Amino acid sequence: MSFDSILIIGAGLIGSSIARAAKSKAGVFTVWVADRSADVVETVERLGFADGVAEGPAHHFAAKADLVILCVPPAKIAEVAAGILPVMKPGAVLSDVGSTKSAMIKAIRPHLRDDVSVIPGHPIAGTEFSGPEAGFAELFENRWCILTPLDDAHPDVARLSAFWQALGSNVELMDPDRHDTVLATTSHVPHLIAYTLVGTAVDMETVTGDEVVKFSASGFRDFTRIAASDPVMWRDVFLSNREATLDVVERFIEDLTALKRAIRWSDGETLLDHFAKTRDIRRRIVESGQDEPNFGRDD
Amino acid sequence: MSFDSILIIGAGLIGSSIARAAKSKAGVFTVWVADRSADVVETVERLGFADGVAEGPAHHFAAKADLVILCVPPAKIAEVAAGILPVMKPGAVLSDVGSTKSAMIKAIRPHLRDDVSVIPGHPIAGTEFSGPEAGFAELFENRWCILTPLDDAHPDVARLSAFWQALGSNVELMDPDRHDTVLATTSHVPHLIAYTLVGTAVDMETVTGDEVVKFSASGFRDFTRIAASDPVMWRDVFLSNREATLDVVERFIEDLTALKRAIRWSDGETLLDHFAKTRDIRRRIVESGQDEPNFGRDD
Ligand SMILES: NC(=O)c1ccc[n+]([C@@H]2O[C@H](COP(=O)([O-])OP(=O)(O)OC[C@H]3O[C@@H](n4cnc5c(N)ncnc54)[C@H](OP(=O)(O)O)[C@@H]3O)[C@@H](O)[C@H]2O)c1
Ligand SMILES: NC(=O)c1ccc[n+]([C@@H]2O[C@H](COP(=O)([O-])OP(=O)(O)OC[C@H]3O[C@@H](n4cnc5c(N)ncnc54)[C@H](OP(=O)(O)O)[C@@H]3O)[C@@H](O)[C@H]2O)c1
Repeated sequence: MSFDSILIIGAGLIGSSIARAAKSKAGVFTVWVADRSADVVETVERLGFADGVAEGPAHHFAAKADLVILCVPPAKIAEVAAGILPVMKPGAVLSDVGSTKSAMIKAIRPHLRDDVSVIPGHPIAGTEFSGPEAGFAELFENRWCILTPLDDAHPDVARLSAFWQALGSNVELMDPDRHDTVLATTSHVPHLIAYTLVGTAVDMETVTGDEVVKFSASGFRDFTRIAASDPVMWRDVFLSNREATLDVVERFIEDLTALKRAIRWSDGETLLDHFAKTRDIRRRIVESGQDEPNFGRDD
Repeated sequence: MSFDSILIIGAGLIGSSIARAAKSKAGVFTVWVADRSADVVETVERLGFADGVAEGPAHHFAAKADLVILCVPPAKIAEVAAGILPVMKPGAVLSDVGSTKSAMIKAIRPHLRDDVSVIPGHPIAGTEFSGPEAGFAELFENRWCILTPLDDAHPDVARLSAFWQALGSNVELMDPDRHDTVLATTSHVPHLIAYTLVGTAVDMETVTGDEVVKFSASGFRDFTRIAASDPVMWRDVFLSNREATLDVVERFIEDLTALKRAIRWSDGETLLDHFAKTRDIRRRIVESGQDEPNFGRDD
């Protein structure tokens, strides 16, 4: 049932974490790693968690691997998938870890093969750091991993689910559009707003001097931590999840405009009504165990 | 130089923390506490950190205290100050801990006395909990306390500064309008935005079901923590810091609208430019030591 050999393409935070965990936790015998960057390849060789490392497309590994997981930035996934699919071995599985799903699935449809299962995925786990040195084998423990299979009933879905469960994750199958809407709400728009607010505060420094830094209270400090995530990755996320992101942002701006109006007209009741409705969701998050201390930022 | 006796009015998180720390850290001999709520009075009596507790205005304590600190909700501070000032003993100091300063100072001006120093203050310290049981003596350690004196040169300013330093705080004198602008940026607007976004997500649940809770990733989780703060206090904060809050909110909406447009038109460069400028401020916050783990939420 498990995969004897896997190829990780893109050995950053997520890729290197999977590579580190695959043997010890998921019964994989051979772990190959490929990255387009010579620096990353050198680092992976030095860290020693791979049985073979290649710079570039790594077709020779792709031709042998039972499972290929694309861990490159979201905007690159479809392109790398299109390049690797034709050389993969019959019966193998192709997956990915990208933070958005619908656009990528649409882009790879023309390249699908009957004898290779494509099962897109997204582990809801991460930190605000990137690169191969930031990874660690425990990253996925007790986190969710969402799979958005093209065919839920295919036996390889259970096989890939078992792989992620072996890494410690809870696996959920989801429709890709729904994934993108849920993640726009819980992750993408919060990041966009954090980036925006921190940018607004930077501009406010012409008014406030360095006092924004000096007296950065926790509301703001939390925002700066969220906004410290990799700008390139997030640009890609917003562009590849455009519709759902814009939809949620527009609802948010409407709501904020209503609260702004309530402040302007000293309408305390509207403010209180709104604030009170947010308490219940917090309680449910704490109850669901999703608020336990974790290793860092997830997305 | 220090205060022999102090009266804390409002024994919630902040008031009870000051009361707990005053004797052991600031050389105070007698700590009186007053609250309008019978429950709170009973709890304070049971917890035993006060030498005397009164329900209601506590004029008998106010007539004897060297320092009175108002720790009631922001919207109540001016009213309580107006009631207590006439009975205070000559030479005493009146301060407060309210999160906004200009509106309160304007409201108490007609009640000032020549022989009582009024020195408004705001400790940048707190947690998302409230009430007398949430307080603890270490709350103010290594946090800033901003004082916005009516007369910076008055010797009582140094005396009150020394009191807060004894509680472990760094004291900064500031103009009240500037305080309100800086705090609108670093605290009030971040809280408003967190409340708004969590509310938007609650409304999105008609679309996403309980998956917002289930997959609440860290961006969103951080927002729900911020939005778990006391709704009544925050309503008061926004209403009493209306101008600065609206000013920062409007800048924020402008910036978010620009980013929304960039996403709509796939203008990755604008996104990246914006995201990159937020990195530097994060670095400066970490360097300034403001990002050390703390006891909870500050505001
Ligand atoms: N970070 C998170 O919190 C998180 C959480 C869940 C999912 N994800 C998803 O995980 C994926 C990777 O994220 P990450 O944080 O691990 O990123 P990362 O640390 O930046 O690593 C990405 C790696 O992929 C390499 N790469 C880029 N294009 C490539 C190509 N065409 N062929 C081979 N390698 C290539 C990059 O090299 P260069 O540096 O030379 O570009 C880099 O080494 C993304 O799709 C992201 O959406 C991230
Ligand atoms: N929480 C923070 O993070 C934080 C940080 C810095 C500054 N502050 C400021 O500190 C002040 C207190 O906040 P907190 O968090 O300590 O609030 P809290 O825990 O809710 O405590 C406020 C207490 O004041 C009592 N009270 C209300 N009106 C009163 C009156 N007229 N006379 C006597 N007592 C009265 C309240 O009783 P009832 O329950 O009956 O109303 C309550 O016991 C606020 O001005 C706030 O802006 C708060």
